Amino acid sequence: MSNRVAIIGAGISKFGELWDKNLRDITLEAGMYAIFDSGVPGSDIDGMVVGNMSAGRFTGQEHLGALAVDMGGLGDIPAYSVEAACASGGAAIRHAYMSIKSREHDLMLVLGCEKMSDVNQTEAMNTISVASDWEWEGMFGATFPALYAFMARRHMHEYGTTEEHLALPTVKNHKNAAHNPWAQFQSPVPIDVVMKSGMLADPLRVLHSSPVTDGAAGLMMCTEDIAKKYCDTPIYVEASDQRSDTLALHDRKSITRMDSVVTSTKNALKAANLEIKDIDVFELHDSFSIGEIILTEDVGIAEKGKGGKALEEGITEIGGKFPVNPSGGLKARGHPVGATGVAQVVELVLQLRGEAEKRQVDGAEKALAVNIGGTGATSIVHILGR
Amino acid sequence: MSNRVAIIGAGISKFGELWDKNLRDITLEAGMYAIFDSGVPGSDIDGMVVGNMSAGRFTGQEHLGALAVDMGGLGDIPAYSVEAACASGGAAIRHAYMSIKSREHDLMLVLGCEKMSDVNQTEAMNTISVASDWEWEGMFGATFPALYAFMARRHMHEYGTTEEHLALPTVKNHKNAAHNPWAQFQSPVPIDVVMKSGMLADPLRVLHSSPVTDGAAGLMMCTEDIAKKYCDTPIYVEASDQRSDTLALHDRKSITRMDSVVTSTKNALKAANLEIKDIDVFELHDSFSIGEIILTEDVGIAEKGKGGKALEEGITEIGGKFPVNPSGGLKARGHPVGATGVAQVVELVLQLRGEAEKRQVDGAEKALAVNIGGTGATSIVHILGR
Repeated sequence: MSNRVAIIGAGISKFGELWDKNLRDITLEAGMYAIFDSGVPGSDIDGMVVGNMSAGRFTGQEHLGALAVDMGGLGDIPAYSVEAACASGGAAIRHAYMSIKSREHDLMLVLGCEKMSDVNQTEAMNTISVASDWEWEGMFGATFPALYAFMARRHMHEYGTTEEHLALPTVKNHKNAAHNPWAQFQSPVPIDVVMKSGMLADPLRVLHSSPVTDGAAGLMMCTEDIAKKYCDTPIYVEASDQRSDTLALHDRKSITRMDSVVTSTKNALKAANLEIKDIDVFELHDSFSIGEIILTEDVGIAEKGKGGKALEEGITEIGGKFPVNPSGGLKARGHPVGATGVAQVVELVLQLRGEAEKRQVDGAEKALAVNIGGTGATSIVHILGR
Repeated sequence: MSNRVAIIGAGISKFGELWDKNLRDITLEAGMYAIFDSGVPGSDIDGMVVGNMSAGRFTGQEHLGALAVDMGGLGDIPAYSVEAACASGGAAIRHAYMSIKSREHDLMLVLGCEKMSDVNQTEAMNTISVASDWEWEGMFGATFPALYAFMARRHMHEYGTTEEHLALPTVKNHKNAAHNPWAQFQSPVPIDVVMKSGMLADPLRVLHSSPVTDGAAGLMMCTEDIAKKYCDTPIYVEASDQRSDTLALHDRKSITRMDSVVTSTKNALKAANLEIKDIDVFELHDSFSIGEIILTEDVGIAEKGKGGKALEEGITEIGGKFPVNPSGGLKARGHPVGATGVAQVVELVLQLRGEAEKRQVDGAEKALAVNIGGTGATSIVHILGR
């Protein structure tokens, strides 16, 4: 009996500041799109998992697993939430992957969701900060912009990364998102606008940072047998790996490298029997532009210290050798924290099916997503293939 | 290759209002006890999962998976949190069960934790209420005492359950907890004290309700091969099942029955090839005394409507035909919401090993735990055997 896990449906809500919708609306929307896309009757779904970081604080609602089953009218199937900060979506995919491999479930709906705009900006920042080491970082004002600023400043010091380099992920990702109808920001941004945007935490500016976003994404995942029954273009999860690092940034050996990303990527490539050169398209977690630069290096697209240069040379553009974030990434598609990991894989499913329209990476056959939590205390990598 | 999942270590922190300890302290304590109890070196652990409901609101810290790995000095192994309201602990066990069956993990540390006493009582009540259907229940003041009061009043109306019956789970569970050194309340309570305690939501009184508790519990779970290597008395997970129901109580066909419990128990017994009469000891989720009465009926110990009578007849006492909550249950051991499901199974492991000292159920071979979320929107059942 085959033990491969497939993705046969993908759906996503519009990302943005959705003042007219609540958490239930957007989650239901993404779930329904994923179910319709798969063509499978809802009654065949035998389990659900919800990736969410902080609905209890953002919206005053926990117990989202049971809520989602209830709203979806999906009977009495089991469901719970998983949380790994901004990697909650990736954790939900990994959870479904293991549940299906265990044969406790055959066909699961995977949701990722976050409604962030119902609280003010200060409360949103505090709520995200509880994913840092609160007692050693957040409590003392070391919010994520500050922590990533440390990483950026050190990267500039060690490797000569410039302010221009820091602006390039934003420019590229906005350009890509202009072709993504689900993205929060669908317009290009010139480099001088990025470089003159307001300072958040020196050297990081507003336009180096992903926004506050409402949004949800969904996937239908199943056994190979079910995939073949319902789907002509199943996408297979060829590997799933997750690694941890210290929660606090100051405990790391290096703050210009994420060891959790290096190891989880290496493990996943090995499990899929692939090398980095075999990957045609990437979604890398760019909560801050320095994050995309570091991840470009840590997954092996560029040598350590040369991530900025890789961007400069266009290697990570659509049409380049290693396209990164064709969706627009967290910066321009938006970053509803619990939804992001699922949204990354939704994009890669579309890319592998050849359905990504004007942002399509031609002939993509293998894809890799890196979803991280905090400053890299969690890294979850999925490799997909058609 | 065997695909059974075993438990080879169990640990628990003292439960109570632990003013001198924080969430990290108690979680580490339970985890360390579980590891020491198993005799396995920490370096062999290849994964972790944390059951927690609301650390973000209770303590200002999310991302507990990475935090627990970090605190435990367990390298870069993967970890995330799972949440299903008060069934978060059971969800963590189910997660590990599936992860091990999938062979993505071989030896996992399962933690459940909650630190509830760092916020005031009003905030604690609000935080627990976000596990109800907030938009239809909690927001309008229908807190859990109120919702369970509806269930109790209806049970009295339909089946003649009396105020004396409502007091009996408390009396039994305090009697049992007097022999449990980890319990929050280790003293018996006479029935007249229960019946004269302050009214919470008519007919439910303070002493019908589980307390606000700080606490954590841990389990070491693994493949059968590893279990045989390290352990002379492995306990096997013979079945794991989970079912959902509507999040809001008012959407149910009946409010004197939890369909999720009925179905998950039936499924689990079938999977384990057992009948209810084969089970020697139970831990049933008694967040309110009416909950224990209803669960006694829904798992099949008593006929519907006769749960109170079963208590009256002593059937569920230690030494009775179907001992329920020898640990003292949620009422007297305490109810740190994310830890409870793990604590239930810790107790059953001790019972099956014959290590429960003065609260031992003689010769127990099969055990069953029911961990529920909300008013039964989630039910998670585990059957254990030695």
